[in-house]
Formats: sequence, structure tokens, C-alpha cells
Amino acid sequence: MTTIETEVAVVGAGLAGLSAARSLAAAGTDAVVLEARDRVGGRTVNEAIGDGVVVELGGQWVGPGQDRILELIGDLGLETFPTYGTGRSLFERKGKIRSYSGTIPRVNPVALAEVGRALAKINRMASRVDPEAPWKQDELAAWDRISFDTWVRRNLRTGTARDMMRLAIEAVWAAEPEDVSLLHVLFYIRSAGSIELLLDSEGGSQEARVVGGTQLISLRMAASLGGSVRLNTAVRRISHGPEGVTVAAEDLERGAAVELSARKVIVALPPALAGRLDYDPPLPAVRDGLTQRMIQGSVVKTMAIYPEPFWREDGLCGQAASADGPVSVVFDNSPPGGTPGVLLAFLEGAAARRAADLPQDQRRRIVIECLTRLFGHRAADPEGYVDKAWAADEWSRGCYGGFMPTGAWFSHGSALRQPVGSIHWAGAETSSRWAGYMEGAIRSGRRAATEVTAGQAG
Amino acid sequence: MTTIETEVAVVGAGLAGLSAARSLAAAGTDAVVLEARDRVGGRTVNEAIGDGVVVELGGQWVGPGQDRILELIGDLGLETFPTYGTGRSLFERKGKIRSYSGTIPRVNPVALAEVGRALAKINRMASRVDPEAPWKQDELAAWDRISFDTWVRRNLRTGTARDMMRLAIEAVWAAEPEDVSLLHVLFYIRSAGSIELLLDSEGGSQEARVVGGTQLISLRMAASLGGSVRLNTAVRRISHGPEGVTVAAEDLERGAAVELSARKVIVALPPALAGRLDYDPPLPAVRDGLTQRMIQGSVVKTMAIYPEPFWREDGLCGQAASADGPVSVVFDNSPPGGTPGVLLAFLEGAAARRAADLPQDQRRRIVIECLTRLFGHRAADPEGYVDKAWAADEWSRGCYGGFMPTGAWFSHGSALRQPVGSIHWAGAETSSRWAGYMEGAIRSGRRAATEVTAGQAG
Repeated sequence: MTTIETEVAVVGAGLAGLSAARSLAAAGTDAVVLEARDRVGGRTVNEAIGDGVVVELGGQWVGPGQDRILELIGDLGLETFPTYGTGRSLFERKGKIRSYSGTIPRVNPVALAEVGRALAKINRMASRVDPEAPWKQDELAAWDRISFDTWVRRNLRTGTARDMMRLAIEAVWAAEPEDVSLLHVLFYIRSAGSIELLLDSEGGSQEARVVGGTQLISLRMAASLGGSVRLNTAVRRISHGPEGVTVAAEDLERGAAVELSARKVIVALPPALAGRLDYDPPLPAVRDGLTQRMIQGSVVKTMAIYPEPFWREDGLCGQAASADGPVSVVFDNSPPGGTPGVLLAFLEGAAARRAADLPQDQRRRIVIECLTRLFGHRAADPEGYVDKAWAADEWSRGCYGGFMPTGAWFSHGSALRQPVGSIHWAGAETSSRWAGYMEGAIRSGRRAATEVTAGQAG
Repeated sequence: MTTIETEVAVVGAGLAGLSAARSLAAAGTDAVVLEARDRVGGRTVNEAIGDGVVVELGGQWVGPGQDRILELIGDLGLETFPTYGTGRSLFERKGKIRSYSGTIPRVNPVALAEVGRALAKINRMASRVDPEAPWKQDELAAWDRISFDTWVRRNLRTGTARDMMRLAIEAVWAAEPEDVSLLHVLFYIRSAGSIELLLDSEGGSQEARVVGGTQLISLRMAASLGGSVRLNTAVRRISHGPEGVTVAAEDLERGAAVELSARKVIVALPPALAGRLDYDPPLPAVRDGLTQRMIQGSVVKTMAIYPEPFWREDGLCGQAASADGPVSVVFDNSPPGGTPGVLLAFLEGAAARRAADLPQDQRRRIVIECLTRLFGHRAADPEGYVDKAWAADEWSRGCYGGFMPTGAWFSHGSALRQPVGSIHWAGAETSSRWAGYMEGAIRSGRRAATEVTAGQAG
């Protein structure tokens, strides 16, 4: 058995865990990061598609207001480039495809007006949420009792408008409107700023990309941490008490036990996965109950690779949304130089669930059929195809992140960040700013590091 | 390391796991049952309160229509006795306590009429649910999209009626109406027969009790299985393939590894706990997603023990319901002879969550205060008090059982019983008849045993 001693154990080498370790290193506190996968980056991962070109199978965009990650990208010597957005977008519904400029498809004016009013109302409601502790705002309890679907059916009448709201929910939460509490949607929007910030490319959270892929952020952070990041090490149990913690893990390559002793531990996993570790003594009921309630979204991220971005010649920017599905949203995801041409297509929510357990070639067929419908016959025969079904990945079990069903924020939200003795919680879900985003992950890691070092001083 | 070989491994020695093992034994198939606790019985457990008297801290009632368990009780040489029901019941709301005879409190006639209409409507809706596969009934999708709370607010207007529906949901699911999908409520009712069957004592699922306590059912089944039930053995990982399974467990007393090789495994745990085992290869996304969505209810079962059942002298049967809480429902739970007098008080849903992580003496104070309000000053000073906060128990993490939030039945219900290769699923939640009840647990174990032996023949 390998035994390790350190000051702080960090579980998970995604952006949250690595940010925690980086903050701890800056504060002069020793930390060891344990990661079950054979790589760092968590829900960000680069995939080489030949000729030195990389695409991302996980989180990839950054945008205005995401100050921590933008600064970190610079600090690590990385650069961003704008998401391709020149040309017209596509919107498909009931077999009809329209092209349009700007953010909103040119559907019928009644539906457009409804959507506009709904977005404004959502922003007004979201502005009332305290993202630090929505469960303390008794006046918001009614919003936690209904699903977003219930709200949509009460507030929007036209089928087109309802479909557009469904697409928005799928695009941001990788869930269906009936899965998510209205309060969760509002919390999440408030934690970013506005629903437009979440939905938009230019001026929003899909505005820019990282040259070389977002996994570089984690790879460079890990490199600067040296040998203190241990891969292929699956944490199984955390024994904890006032005097410290013992983290029992398994070296997945050698099938050997690893034991790490530390003063504190930061668990930087989505709540659904944090709940699957053993804890000795067991966690309080409210914390365990939170992990039973925070569900990971369902998304398959797919990319079709073409010799060139042929849609640009057709005056299209490569962005599309389809209410007919199963592909819900498409982006031009070509590398900075524009070669090869890459169409990024998402299967989200129910569509992702149906596809997650299929063989990859069947998913490819489903996706290419949608892309051909949207972008014409030149989309029919890509030279490459890659995808990742995040719900089938045992170390994520869903993306983009965890969401709350009805009732859960009020009954269990208080356990989201509350440390349990020597155990502290990080991860994008635990952030009150940009919850669920890479920005939120980084903030959460730094916050947890501050908690741990504050405890040290105290 | 201890290594064991058998034909079928069973995980969990509750009523489901033991029933599976018993069926397998009857079919001449060797099975070994692995149980993490130091006892059998799962969510049924006896507690001795002195003088040879036993009370149950878990599941305790049986009633008409629960044929399998009633027959099993007889087969095991056990007897039932009626739940005490002579005298008037109490209903408390807004500080006012009324006594009444029969099933329904004598609240204002408008509220009563509303509740009556609502129950009839619920039964009509439930009768449309196919409890074998509600996710296939497209016409029911709208019922899966809304919480029961949303339905109540649409269908009941008076505060009293809504409070009574909330009490009913708490009493049956140990959850709040906003936690549970309407379809889940309807499925559950359909799996039993009618909502009255779930709510009633006489003629319903609280009609009778088992002399000596329901844990005797599991104890006697285990005794007849001899040495094939292994306690203190926590299963951690199931490696599975077409040729069989390897179940890796930990002997919690000796801290030693136990490995069991078998042709098949029956996992007889609530889905929320089944999801916490490691599986190699990982489970399909839809099965894992189910375990992320099926939430364990929140209940603290408490009993106050008095020299005699003094309320009987006052013409009360000991049954009470309070909309004011935190105790929601009370029963006379005295042993067959009536001595000592025992009042059983439930903290359910939100009240249970608030109480689960408190020290026991604080819970006692909360409960006794409610009982004194309801039954007078003679309730103020019990000679004994016992309770169990099921959400704090790491091997149950909630009771009475798992429920579905909105959207989950349609997206993931298909994974509830569907075997994954050599892995079969049992547990009260997986039963299409009396889901969530001891009867359902027994049926589920027998069904899983049939699957396994059918596979053997095939």
C-alpha cells in the first residue's frame, strides 16, 4: 500500500480541484490531488483530430463576465479566439428551416413577442434570487415547488414559443423543462447575470474559445503543480474527524491501495458523484440527501469534421437550433484557421438519454442525418466524426452539470457548500457565481482553498 | 481475503434479498446473501423496550391485498393482530384540535367535499396507469411533468383540503407534494389498488401488525437459509460479464476483503443505494441515471412509551394527524396486550429533514411537545422514548422508499427492473404491485429469483 502525507487532500483534478490546489500552493500549503481518470480536466477534454488540430469534447466556451477564467487563461500563456459567427443562423421546426440574422429566429411575431416577454420576466424573477442562499428566501418557495415546464405552460401559449423555451433549457442545462425546478433555472441565471448571457454567443457565454482547447487550462495548472497530481487514483472512502482525514483510494493501473493522510480534504466532484464515496463517519442526512437530489444533465457532444467549413460559403455561420431534433443545437467549431470545418452538434436531455447507450456508429448516423437536413448534402459525408456521451462516463455520469428537481433547493440547498467537519466541497455546482460553468468551477476551488487555509489560521 | 463461490449472489438481506434467496433455495439454486448491517431485515427492525416487549422502528403494518406477505407470515409460524382502532381520532390544524370517528376528520364541509372529490379523481387517474410500464403510456406524459403539489393547487382551493392532501403525501411517501411527480403518486396508488388502501387502517395497509415485530419475518427467513447469509459484509464493487460476476465486499468487523464469485447477482437495494456501488464495466447511462433520480423519502419514526395507553380511557384510539406539525401522524402502537402504552409519532418530509441531524434528546423534546398538545399532560412524561432517523442511516439513507421527481418516470423508468447482463434488480421500489411496501419487497425478490433461474434454464 502506498501511503502519502500532506496538508490538504483534493479529490478530483478538474478545474475546481486544480484551482483549489493552485490557490493552496500560492498560500504555501501542501496539497495532493487525486484523480480517478488517466488525465486531468474533468469535464473538459481535448480530442486530437489529426494534423495537430484539437477539438473539445467537454466544456469549451468563455465569455464576458467570466473574469477568473479569462485572467487564468492569460496567466497560463493561453489565448482565446472568437466563436465563428459570420453569416445567418438556422432554425428548424415542424420540418421547416428558416435562416435569420442576430440572436432570435424570425418565427411568427406572436411567438417572438411571447418569447421576448418571457425572457424579460425570467430575468426580473432571477434578479430577486440571492445566489448565495436561495433556500433562505421564503418568498421564493413557490418557485421551487414548480418545474420550469409548469411555468412555461402557464406563461407561453404558442407552440413555437414553448419549443424555443424547451430548446433554451436543453441548451443550458442538458435537461428537459419538466426535470428542473423553476427556482433552479432562476438561481443559475442569477449566478451568471441574465438569460441572454447564458444563451448568446457574441456578448454571451459562448463568445470565445481557447486556442488549443480548454483542457490546456487544466494541463498547464497540473504541470505547475508538479508531482502533486496523482492520476488513475480512484478515491473510495474518506475517514474524517476533528484531527484530520484519511483518504482511501485505489491505484487503478496497479490495483493497489493508496492511503493519503491530511488535515483537510476538498471534494471537487459534482454532488451526485461525491455522494458515491464512502464516508466514515457517515455524512449528515441533509448532505447525503443533497447528493440524492442533484441530478447530472444528459448530453452527447458530437462533432462532424469536413475538409472545409462549406456552410460559410453558403452565407451560414454554422449555428442552428432544431425543435424537431434529435440534434438540438449546432455550432461552427472549426479551429482558428478554419480548416478543417467542424460542425458541433449537441444531443441534449431526452435525445441524449436515448443516444447515450447506443453504439457510436448509430449516434453518428443520427447526427449526420440532422446535419444534412440543416446544412444540405455536403454535410452527409464527413471525413471524421467524434463524440462523447457524458452520462456513460463513470467519472462524470452526465454533463453539463448537476441540477435540482422541484423541492430540492429549499429542502437541501443549505448543504451545497456547508463543510462537514474537515471535508470541504468544491465543483462548478457549488459556486454562487457562474454556477455550472468553468468560471464557477475555478471560483469554487479558490473558495474551498480559502476555507481550508482560514481554518488553518483559526 | 475470504473467497466464496456460489450460483447466485444476493446483495442486501432485507425482505427483498431474503425472499430472493428463499425462492432460489426452493428451486435448488445455491445463493449467498451479503448484508452490510449487523442484522437482517433492511428497513424493518425490532427494538426491545423491556419486559420482552418489542416495537418496530421500520416497516410494521400489513393489510388486505398483501397476499404474499400474509401467507409468508403464516408459513413462518407468525401471527398478526389488529392495529388498535377503538375510539375517536384527532385532527389538528391552526392550533385547533377536533376529535372524530371514522376515516375522515370532521373539518368544514367545503373542505371535506373537496377532499372527497380529489380522492375520487386521483383513483380514477391511477386506474389508467399500467404499473408494469407507465413510461410507455404516452398519454400519461403530462402527469409526469408536474409535481403533485402543482396538481393539488390546481384542483383544491381550501387551505384545509390542501393541508389534508399534504398530510396524505407525507404519510405515504415521507416526502412533500412538491418533491414527487404526480405520475409517481398515481403509479404507487395503482400498484396498491386505491388511495384509501394506502391511507386507511381498518381495511387498508395499516390494518394489522405482526406479533413480535416484522423483523421476525426476515429473522426466520434467514434462519431457514442457514449459513448462507453473511452479515457485516459491505458490497463495494460488482464486476460482471456474460460468464458471471465477482462481488467484492468488505468484512466490516475485521476490515478484511471478501470476494464472491457467482453466475448472477441480485441487487436488492433501493436504487439510490444501488447506484453507489462500483460496477465494472460501468452501468448503462439510463440505469445510472435512474439511480440519480430515485430519491429516498425522509422520515423519523419515534415512539413514546407510557405505563399504559391512557388515551384509551379518554375514548381516543391514539390515531392523530396534525397539519401544524412537526409530528404529522400518530398511532397507538402498544403491543397486543396493551401494556405498555406506546404512541408512535412520525416526523415526515421537511419535518424529518430538520430533525434527522439533531441529537436524539432534541428530537424527543420536539415529539413529546406535539404529543402533549394532542393527548394532554399525561403524554408529557413518557417512561421511555426510542426513535430512528432513517435518512441518517447509511445503509438506507431514507425511508419509506425511493420516489421519482418530475420527468424521471418517463426518462428513466425503463431501467427500474431491466437486468444489466448478469445483474438483476430487486427491492420494494422495483415492484409493480404494492411498490414501496413489504409486500412489494417480497414480490420483487421472488421475481428476481425467477429471472435468474429462467436464465439458468435458457
